[in-house]
Amino acid sequence: MDKIEVVQIGVVNRDSPEEDEFDRSLVSRIVLKNEFADGLKGIEEFSHVFIIYWLDRIPDSKKRLVVPAGSQKLAQQVGVFATRMPIRPNPIGLSMVELVKHERNTIWVRGLDALDGTPVLDIKPYPECVKGKFIIADKFKVPNWLR
Amino acid sequence: MDKIEVVQIGVVNRDSPEEDEFDRSLVSRIVLKNEFADGLKGIEEFSHVFIIYWLDRIPDSKKRLVVPAGSQKLAQQVGVFATRMPIRPNPIGLSMVELVKHERNTIWVRGLDALDGTPVLDIKPYPECVKGKFIIADKFKVPNWLR
Repeated sequence: MDKIEVVQIGVVNRDSPEEDEFDRSLVSRIVLKNEFADGLKGIEEFSHVFIIYWLDRIPDSKKRLVVPAGSQKLAQQVGVFATRMPIRPNPIGLSMVELVKHERNTIWVRGLDALDGTPVLDIKPYPECVKGKFIIADKFKVPNWLR
Repeated sequence: MDKIEVVQIGVVNRDSPEEDEFDRSLVSRIVLKNEFADGLKGIEEFSHVFIIYWLDRIPDSKKRLVVPAGSQKLAQQVGVFATRMPIRPNPIGLSMVELVKHERNTIWVRGLDALDGTPVLDIKPYPECVKGKFIIADKFKVPNWLR
């Protein structure tokens, strides 16, 4: 199996298409198709969720090595999977966001970096919990170029 | 746009198909197709990564409400997007795992709950970093049924 088909469950709506999507203090809406509205029942009991979305305005690219933003002066090339750059084999976006409000088929979230109109693929609660233990990493290591 | 096509970039390999995939202390391998190997350059400088994969053995389901594992005695129904249940409109899996080792087109990770042979769609570093700030949630709220 090489090609996999996913369905769009909803869309990102921003108040203004001119909003700075890098400003993570802004609130955007995720509006699900009505058929998926029941899937949100009880989500408001979480303070944070993951949004998985489709970066539909990213051009196809065979690039595997990129110079990550912020490290230009190092001119250090790293692999796309070591970055959050949108150019990747599958332009899937992942944001951990603050859940502000839930009404019927819509949630309001703070911190989503997706453009207005972006297709949404999945919503998952944060954090994952396995046998009563939350899967979080409070200690972690990152490359110097990211700091 | 309703149907979106994604490509399989690699596969999950476990030492034994009989391993308990709920045991998050186990290490599994993610073997990328050779054409994507360069995309892993430098990933070993991260201690944790997100794995996005495709739950290819989950039957189609129109279920939107589920009784999450562990809450049976409450018989509380919540929406699929408020759970990590694999039955969801897009059976996309997401695990935050510990990165153990990287060699060429393969990474070894601890804590992946995917079965042997599971198609992999994307790998992203943890945590996201925006303007020098790490996007982590050290304070969070979850429903009582999850605890």
